Amino acid sequence: MVCFLKYSKYCDFPIENLPYGVFSTPSNPTPRIGVAIADGILDLSEIAHLFTGPELKNHQHVFREQTLNSFMALTPKAWKEARETIQSLLSEGNPTLQNNSDLRSRAFALQSESIMHLPAKIGDYTDFYSSIHHATNVGVMFRSKENALMPNWKYLPVGYHGRASSVLISGTPIQRPYGQTTIVDGTPPVFGPSKLMDFELEMAFFVGGSTKVGEPIPVEKAHEHIFGFVIMNDWSARDIQKWEYIPLGPFTSKNLGTTISPWVVTTFALEPFIVDNYPQDPEPFPYLKHSDKYNFDINLQVDIAPKGSNVSTTVCRSNYKYLYWTVKQQLAHHTITGCNVNPGDLMGSGTISGDTSDSYGSMLELSWKGTKPLVLLDGSQRKFLLDDDTVTMKAVCEGDDYNIGFGTCSGTLLPAKELK
Amino acid sequence: MVCFLKYSKYCDFPIENLPYGVFSTPSNPTPRIGVAIADGILDLSEIAHLFTGPELKNHQHVFREQTLNSFMALTPKAWKEARETIQSLLSEGNPTLQNNSDLRSRAFALQSESIMHLPAKIGDYTDFYSSIHHATNVGVMFRSKENALMPNWKYLPVGYHGRASSVLISGTPIQRPYGQTTIVDGTPPVFGPSKLMDFELEMAFFVGGSTKVGEPIPVEKAHEHIFGFVIMNDWSARDIQKWEYIPLGPFTSKNLGTTISPWVVTTFALEPFIVDNYPQDPEPFPYLKHSDKYNFDINLQVDIAPKGSNVSTTVCRSNYKYLYWTVKQQLAHHTITGCNVNPGDLMGSGTISGDTSDSYGSMLELSWKGTKPLVLLDGSQRKFLLDDDTVTMKAVCEGDDYNIGFGTCSGTLLPAKELK
Repeated sequence: MVCFLKYSKYCDFPIENLPYGVFSTPSNPTPRIGVAIADGILDLSEIAHLFTGPELKNHQHVFREQTLNSFMALTPKAWKEARETIQSLLSEGNPTLQNNSDLRSRAFALQSESIMHLPAKIGDYTDFYSSIHHATNVGVMFRSKENALMPNWKYLPVGYHGRASSVLISGTPIQRPYGQTTIVDGTPPVFGPSKLMDFELEMAFFVGGSTKVGEPIPVEKAHEHIFGFVIMNDWSARDIQKWEYIPLGPFTSKNLGTTISPWVVTTFALEPFIVDNYPQDPEPFPYLKHSDKYNFDINLQVDIAPKGSNVSTTVCRSNYKYLYWTVKQQLAHHTITGCNVNPGDLMGSGTISGDTSDSYGSMLELSWKGTKPLVLLDGSQRKFLLDDDTVTMKAVCEGDDYNIGFGTCSGTLLPAKELK
Repeated sequence: MVCFLKYSKYCDFPIENLPYGVFSTPSNPTPRIGVAIADGILDLSEIAHLFTGPELKNHQHVFREQTLNSFMALTPKAWKEARETIQSLLSEGNPTLQNNSDLRSRAFALQSESIMHLPAKIGDYTDFYSSIHHATNVGVMFRSKENALMPNWKYLPVGYHGRASSVLISGTPIQRPYGQTTIVDGTPPVFGPSKLMDFELEMAFFVGGSTKVGEPIPVEKAHEHIFGFVIMNDWSARDIQKWEYIPLGPFTSKNLGTTISPWVVTTFALEPFIVDNYPQDPEPFPYLKHSDKYNFDINLQVDIAPKGSNVSTTVCRSNYKYLYWTVKQQLAHHTITGCNVNPGDLMGSGTISGDTSDSYGSMLELSWKGTKPLVLLDGSQRKFLLDDDTVTMKAVCEGDDYNIGFGTCSGTLLPAKELK
């Protein structure tokens, strides 16, 4: 497939990718739906009338909305048709866009000149805990090597409901939060800014389609509800988390902000990068069992750039494929009790750590609870994040002929603000 | 204050109450905003033009919407003006409605002939754990009397994020859920329908107004964001909960459905029933401290009616005032890390248990983990809920001259459905 736009082989957004996002421009501040192509954005609101296939001809309005929810509400057939239509319009030899200079000038924007918005109105946000290396590391640190994994961990994809309102688009700064922490276990808590701010390297998927309360999604139909993926940084205040989380789980330590990358990479684009599922033992219950491969080879990377420094340090290289539970299993488990889902729901993977110490997806693990500080390229040390650190996450599938990139998920940790 | 409609002194919805809800009728299936008065509903969409005060004259559209979110997005001043306008319109001596038979016939519906809908689109749903008797009971059962309350419990209002999509309006049946449970601790789990289905007697408040990420709500301003209250049944699968909840909290055991009563009783209506706050020791941190009373004397009751029985049994009589943490404290704590809130967010109290065994707000406590079965009036016994049991919760403030009622929060537990 050849695009009439030219770009490097290592570009994040070739014609094989076509991730969806919501953007605006200084000259047109109305958020609208676009598709990333090379360093540009194809504005779908300008070409909505070109979606004339059987699935979309009566749903062109979904491309004129300010979020992707209505498009996500359609079926995989419709998503596929949209992808094929866009691929065709961008192909060398198709004159519709290429030779219509007026339409081209209206329909293309530069990413560098655009402002990105949340791709969807997120109804509910769930976060799983599906990396066996991460769960094991945390277990070893806070319990013991022998009891590292909780008894339930290999039987079900552990997860919890998170806060949807504070999911933020890449680039939004995060305020260092206040909260209660204990300095010495067993002594009364103190109140003040968190001293142990952390990132969590995650991927998350957006739900497509909807279900009704009381109707679990069978694992073999779960893929119909997996629209696409983004990178996610689940900012965490470790000291607040430690004091608050028993017995109902993380609460204010995680609701201070969760950052996602702006481009939603569809499962179609990821298909060539499907790899074997992580081996599971014990065998999952039938409601969680699927024999097809649904794991992805996505290289992940976390960089930290201190304030004023133009040198950023890569502190973690991990891969999506290390996840023990698949997204199909996550969705089947989430709904087995009858919980419904809606288009635009966001479901995070949990911190994705690999099995080597340079592949751990959080400062908690990288610095092993603060006992092994990292040394950054500028010579400064980190146990946890410092004020004004910028954390940037990247994700890319590296193919022989092209890459499927996710762009970046970035945020700067601002110092705590004085309380009013 | 005298209403031109006549009703009993013990009516739930006198002119002093005026709770908001969303209803439709067989002849007009469009959901619209109404106020409960006696056994009727005043249709605000029909009288939106009568809100001509300074706060609302430019916001009449909020009464023509299908949810209360836009009204909740306004200020306490606007909510107060709306209440005063409605009270005036319903007063004996005000001819606007009383003497306009055409408008009256359009603007009033009977509750018995109406269908109630969720009052708001719930962006995020949070559930607290603020009853000291409930938390103590659970602690005694699962740990010991000495370690009943977790160390953090008296320092902060413990809470967790719940699932907003499965919050349901009173009357919606609940399906007995499937899930993983362990029959004997330490043995592998089994899969099947939950055997320990429970209710949780709660109240919940709807958030009014909105805040931005990074801006905590000071406790002294929290009341500006507390729009009004409903009764809530946080259905819980105890056996699933027990197996899944470590370490991230309840997940699928609670996302199967949460029922709320349809009428949102405003804080204005509750003012005459404000009572002393629950004594707190240790003294809370300054960000949680408020000296004004913000606790409410609301009688609560739970009835169980077995299938086909016309005899329901009251299994619990409790009171809102037993809550240790106030809603102001809940909101200040929820946002201390910078979490934002939006109009229509729902925040539950947690199970409200009193200090006597007939005031416990769940079957778990009432039957003391199944060791003391309850005997219903029809002679049948209950450790937990049986299929086709209907659970009905009521809440009412009993005054000398009038009651402020919340109506009912009701739901029937249907048998588990065969999995597809």
